[in-house]
Amino acid sequence: MNFNEFLNHLSNYEPGKDIEVIAKEYGISEVIKLASNENPFGVPPKAIESLKQNASKAYLYPDDSMIELKSKLAQKYKIKNENIIIGAGSDQIIEFAVHSKLNPQNAFLQTGVTFAMYEIYAKQRGAKCYKTSSITHDLKEFKTLYDKHKEEIKIIFLCLPNNPLGECLDADEVLEFIRDVDKDCLLVLDAAYNEFASFKDEKKHLEPYDLIKEFENVLFLGTFSKLYGLGGLRIGYGIANTQIINAFYKLRAPFNVSNLALKAAVAALDDEEFVKKTLKNNFSQMQLYYEFAKKHGIKTLQSYTNFITYFFDEKNSIDLSEKLLKKGIIIRNLKSYGLNAMRITIGTPYENEKFLTEMEKILKK
Amino acid sequence: MNFNEFLNHLSNYEPGKDIEVIAKEYGISEVIKLASNENPFGVPPKAIESLKQNASKAYLYPDDSMIELKSKLAQKYKIKNENIIIGAGSDQIIEFAVHSKLNPQNAFLQTGVTFAMYEIYAKQRGAKCYKTSSITHDLKEFKTLYDKHKEEIKIIFLCLPNNPLGECLDADEVLEFIRDVDKDCLLVLDAAYNEFASFKDEKKHLEPYDLIKEFENVLFLGTFSKLYGLGGLRIGYGIANTQIINAFYKLRAPFNVSNLALKAAVAALDDEEFVKKTLKNNFSQMQLYYEFAKKHGIKTLQSYTNFITYFFDEKNSIDLSEKLLKKGIIIRNLKSYGLNAMRITIGTPYENEKFLTEMEKILKK
Repeated sequence: MNFNEFLNHLSNYEPGKDIEVIAKEYGISEVIKLASNENPFGVPPKAIESLKQNASKAYLYPDDSMIELKSKLAQKYKIKNENIIIGAGSDQIIEFAVHSKLNPQNAFLQTGVTFAMYEIYAKQRGAKCYKTSSITHDLKEFKTLYDKHKEEIKIIFLCLPNNPLGECLDADEVLEFIRDVDKDCLLVLDAAYNEFASFKDEKKHLEPYDLIKEFENVLFLGTFSKLYGLGGLRIGYGIANTQIINAFYKLRAPFNVSNLALKAAVAALDDEEFVKKTLKNNFSQMQLYYEFAKKHGIKTLQSYTNFITYFFDEKNSIDLSEKLLKKGIIIRNLKSYGLNAMRITIGTPYENEKFLTEMEKILKK
Repeated sequence: MNFNEFLNHLSNYEPGKDIEVIAKEYGISEVIKLASNENPFGVPPKAIESLKQNASKAYLYPDDSMIELKSKLAQKYKIKNENIIIGAGSDQIIEFAVHSKLNPQNAFLQTGVTFAMYEIYAKQRGAKCYKTSSITHDLKEFKTLYDKHKEEIKIIFLCLPNNPLGECLDADEVLEFIRDVDKDCLLVLDAAYNEFASFKDEKKHLEPYDLIKEFENVLFLGTFSKLYGLGGLRIGYGIANTQIINAFYKLRAPFNVSNLALKAAVAALDDEEFVKKTLKNNFSQMQLYYEFAKKHGIKTLQSYTNFITYFFDEKNSIDLSEKLLKKGIIIRNLKSYGLNAMRITIGTPYENEKFLTEMEKILKK
């Protein structure tokens, strides 16, 4: 059977292995997953309560107006419901952005190493990819590339802070950069980890209200998968001016998010205690990873997220990852990004100690 | 801001109103929803148990290999895991089919009145739509139209049984029809309600194993939204030969289904008691709707689903729907399909009695 020609340029995504699947395969009783930047404290208690209470409602189609969650987000950010679109993860909003703007005649711009889905979706539309030579965000280089290919570039992705490297630009310099970009170019500000960055340093904080007030071409992305502990439920959101939101709505299938996810997300937003605990643990525990890195001569970047990235010189990160896996510890190897590095999610104190102890043994061998 | 040209041909989907939203708006304490063909008995008890037990795992990304559910389905249908793709509802598999096969140079074929999403997705790709003049499935007309536009038509949708009308072709005649279709044309057999049809009349039964054994160009679609009572969780599946499944995988975003949905679906497949109860109730209760229709001179079709369609001559279906709504009863008006008709989900005995009582009062006025 023949398929549309663009499929020939796409590869099949290779899923990572699930924690339960690995435990079975290696016969390990305890698996520690520090691979996907999930919340180490699990699901917010209020969201667990919501899931249990609403389990018996799973037969009903979701409220497709999503008014409850939209109103909650609108209140949180002091914006209007009509400036919000809910997606099956913020991934799906990236998908809408790409499909509404990109095509084989235009291009997008991103940093050298960043969230892989930007490029994966863009390939589906056959758009050209411009990347900075810098692996982290370098706005000077962004500006040079943008000015050179202004006619072509219709989306610029900024991941703030950046996944999988952890660095983050200051909000001020981001705003200054956007002011020089043409109004027909969509600025996607991926703020999946921005709550972590804001907690560490308020200069990194992005405020959707200010962004959409000043810029008609900015899309702010938020997610419930990280700080709010709902990665398994697939729910995130986009905030932008109504022209952008309406365009995205044309690409959205009805009922794109489950009803239990919508209700759990509302509950998660109310769980302030859980949020505080997560943020506090994250940065105090991250210190242990920096100290470990220093002791062992491992290179790091300043991380504004819930993970840290270790760069290796002589040791091979694949080899190290496999050795960790055999000990029941899953981290994210960054070989597929062309880096001899690994990304480790900051876990609970127990998980972090376990990782650092095993890693020390492995490095000594 | 400019968007890709094809968006100009798409309209924003207008979501139906949610049961809770309507109850609030009309100040009604009891709302009966017979509008979306959800399971009137709710969620299978085993699936409720699964949701409650796994609520605390909602922070973990789903197992993207979906091996547990795939294996369960493979066992049920005596097929291989590699012949299965899981979607956020079978809707999402329709989306994959459309995007992988259709483009502005080709076309698809469907019956006059059928599931609206076929055409909605196809518009996103700019493909031409051929419809039979018959509103129900008429294979002779399908064949005439197909033979005439063979070079163009790359997908044929058969909805077996048909939503929103309820009629169903015999499996034998479907197979005979497929044998005359070119191997490059994808036959989508939407079996969302096929369990209901099979229960009523085994001649309607579609068996994925036989279909994919004989035909390399058939896609069988199943869902957990109807018989299995998980409409709110957004989960369905496609079964086809591996060439088709692999093509669809290129369009699938990672983690397209929530982890709780994957686990609940496995549990639902085990809940045989719930399934039996649903099927038995459905067709015994449907009799009351036929008797009512006969008494009041309302036209109907033979329904092989969990809903019945009432066609009106003099009375206006919109007017009737609004009057029902004021009584707290939501049904699906079919005006948007160009019909003076309504589709009513077969509910619990209590719900059906309530509907029939109120409808009788309304018709008498």
